[in-house]
Amino acid sequence: MINGPLKNLLVVDLTRVLVGPYCTMMLSDLGARVIKIEAPEIGDDSRKFGPFINDYSAYFMSLNRGKESIALNLKKPEDKKIFESIVSKADILVENFKPGTLEKWGLGWKELSKKYPKLIYASASGFGQTGPLKELPAYDMVVQGMGGLMSVTGQPNSEPTRVGTSIGDITAGLFTTIGINAALYDREKTGKGMYIDVSMLDCQIAILENAIARYLSKNEIPKPMGSRHPSIAPFEAFKTKDSHIIIAAGNDKLFENLCNFLKISEISKDTKFITNSKRSENMDELKIILENKLKEKKTSEWVKGMEELKIPCGPIFNIKEAVENPQIRERNMIVKSFHKVVGEFRTAGNPIKMSSYNDSTTRGDIPDLDEHRDKIIKEFCN
Amino acid sequence: MINGPLKNLLVVDLTRVLVGPYCTMMLSDLGARVIKIEAPEIGDDSRKFGPFINDYSAYFMSLNRGKESIALNLKKPEDKKIFESIVSKADILVENFKPGTLEKWGLGWKELSKKYPKLIYASASGFGQTGPLKELPAYDMVVQGMGGLMSVTGQPNSEPTRVGTSIGDITAGLFTTIGINAALYDREKTGKGMYIDVSMLDCQIAILENAIARYLSKNEIPKPMGSRHPSIAPFEAFKTKDSHIIIAAGNDKLFENLCNFLKISEISKDTKFITNSKRSENMDELKIILENKLKEKKTSEWVKGMEELKIPCGPIFNIKEAVENPQIRERNMIVKSFHKVVGEFRTAGNPIKMSSYNDSTTRGDIPDLDEHRDKIIKEFCN
Repeated sequence: MINGPLKNLLVVDLTRVLVGPYCTMMLSDLGARVIKIEAPEIGDDSRKFGPFINDYSAYFMSLNRGKESIALNLKKPEDKKIFESIVSKADILVENFKPGTLEKWGLGWKELSKKYPKLIYASASGFGQTGPLKELPAYDMVVQGMGGLMSVTGQPNSEPTRVGTSIGDITAGLFTTIGINAALYDREKTGKGMYIDVSMLDCQIAILENAIARYLSKNEIPKPMGSRHPSIAPFEAFKTKDSHIIIAAGNDKLFENLCNFLKISEISKDTKFITNSKRSENMDELKIILENKLKEKKTSEWVKGMEELKIPCGPIFNIKEAVENPQIRERNMIVKSFHKVVGEFRTAGNPIKMSSYNDSTTRGDIPDLDEHRDKIIKEFCN
Repeated sequence: MINGPLKNLLVVDLTRVLVGPYCTMMLSDLGARVIKIEAPEIGDDSRKFGPFINDYSAYFMSLNRGKESIALNLKKPEDKKIFESIVSKADILVENFKPGTLEKWGLGWKELSKKYPKLIYASASGFGQTGPLKELPAYDMVVQGMGGLMSVTGQPNSEPTRVGTSIGDITAGLFTTIGINAALYDREKTGKGMYIDVSMLDCQIAILENAIARYLSKNEIPKPMGSRHPSIAPFEAFKTKDSHIIIAAGNDKLFENLCNFLKISEISKDTKFITNSKRSENMDELKIILENKLKEKKTSEWVKGMEELKIPCGPIFNIKEAVENPQIRERNMIVKSFHKVVGEFRTAGNPIKMSSYNDSTTRGDIPDLDEHRDKIIKEFCN
């Protein structure tokens, strides 16, 4: 178990696939004990998602390290009894069933909070527990599409482009984790738990940043812009001699430094480029000027020079390069866990570094389906 | 002020642009009082980011509604004194300066925590407070590039594609908010504050999902796949008669339902498509079969039919359609705030819905630079 701010807290984890497991993984990384309740025989759907190592899903393993597993059929009275024995000692319940599922089984918030008023009960769902779409199932792709994010991601006029990670699930997992932690603080003050309802679609609206500001203030409908930022310039990827470099000169001073470094000082004084808003207006012209210089050297040479001058810039790393970056190693962002067949398994670590707790380099073992049944029953059902 | 779990808490906000302001906006949405300390004359850089309404930045307004503003030069002794008067009463300090900046001014965590041991002090930075890159500045684009996300986002072989929102800043803002809330809970138990160090680059590693699982388990280097999910199939955008439809059939049962609905039941029994991993292998072939059927009707017709059968699907909405979705209205995801010149201003709401607190339909006013000086000085400097 991790030594963290949530130590001594027990999480009943009724989640599967990504949004819920990502949330309970964070709770585990913060020190909580997580007991994962899985459907008998099938288990978490993601146990069947690739990539696989010796028939074990690396996808499942990367999200469920350090959790305990027990298989329960929550429609059966005897399993429900085991479930309630665990819930009666729990601080937090997290679930991502379709809204109404747990109510149907007599395990909704209203029922459970009557018996366990200190329980914090969090539901993450595609569309939320209210509203006309609440009954509909959703996966990441659906909310990336309906939330507007896909309409601003991609090259101009390209085929539909999703964000290359399941950002619909992940952001909802993060918002749910915030809600749970805020509710823990609240419980210290009030002595009471609460219900937290997070919708993946809502979370997509909450992360639209300048796109939503643009629409709500100007009725503009933003479109995909490749690598370009719509409000800041220069702020995109530029061609170099061998690949691309990202340059993010977010204010006038940085732009001036960039122009001086590239020996095109006159450009930073040109009225067409003198402020961020002028540069945004005239970015096509500015891009030609910058790439004309940048094609003279390789990305690594440019990065080195610009880094010395503290001009924000960088290469576009693939996943291998991103993971092997010494900065990432030094920050303990790749941690180890263990599976009894697969052996040592590496996953992403916890980006929240806290002075009161050591950032552990390992995580608990990866559970097989129902692996901890005996231990859990012995502990909770006496 | 919002009535929420963080009511009665005071946040000293030394942040600007996006990662920090997004975090303190969340704290404000959860009920905390936020006093934003801005550089005299210049203020938050994002006051100069478009789009503008009557010369006021909608970008700034959307992130800073409900905060109070005072302009202080933290290098000047008289302003430092005002600053410390505020900090002495604060619960949380959030900053996103380049690492070392506040230490240089005598306002680092070590100094302040000696005087105010209950203070929670959170730093969000591009690369974190440690490691070889800690001195370097970063903006969203830089960490999207170096964190690997851009390498898996886009069409196959397309030009570099960023996520259409500043996901580098936003995820780091969310992780910082989680850290602060966990630290608040911890403080209830220990009586002590702590230091929280979040790096935007670390957060990019933490959200890589299947891409990092793929690399760490199989040494595969994933590439952009347009709208396709690399581990789940069918899970992408398909052409219809008039536009595109997203279909996310995440398990065998859903795929069977989809095939039955499209009157191609035989496909779900075909050994090439019978499991998720077989479908992932043979997705190019499957896409041709599905699009051949899907081109017969319009997206809205398909969506209607599939929704009835609870097959996860949806259109690709632009920002206007996303914001005007009745589900989003019903969920109170567009809230109102007020600026004395611009008037009523709409922004994204809080996706964390909590049973113990009403989800307010309004937020506090938008501050001009230094607007609350007199009030703050009167309150804290006596």
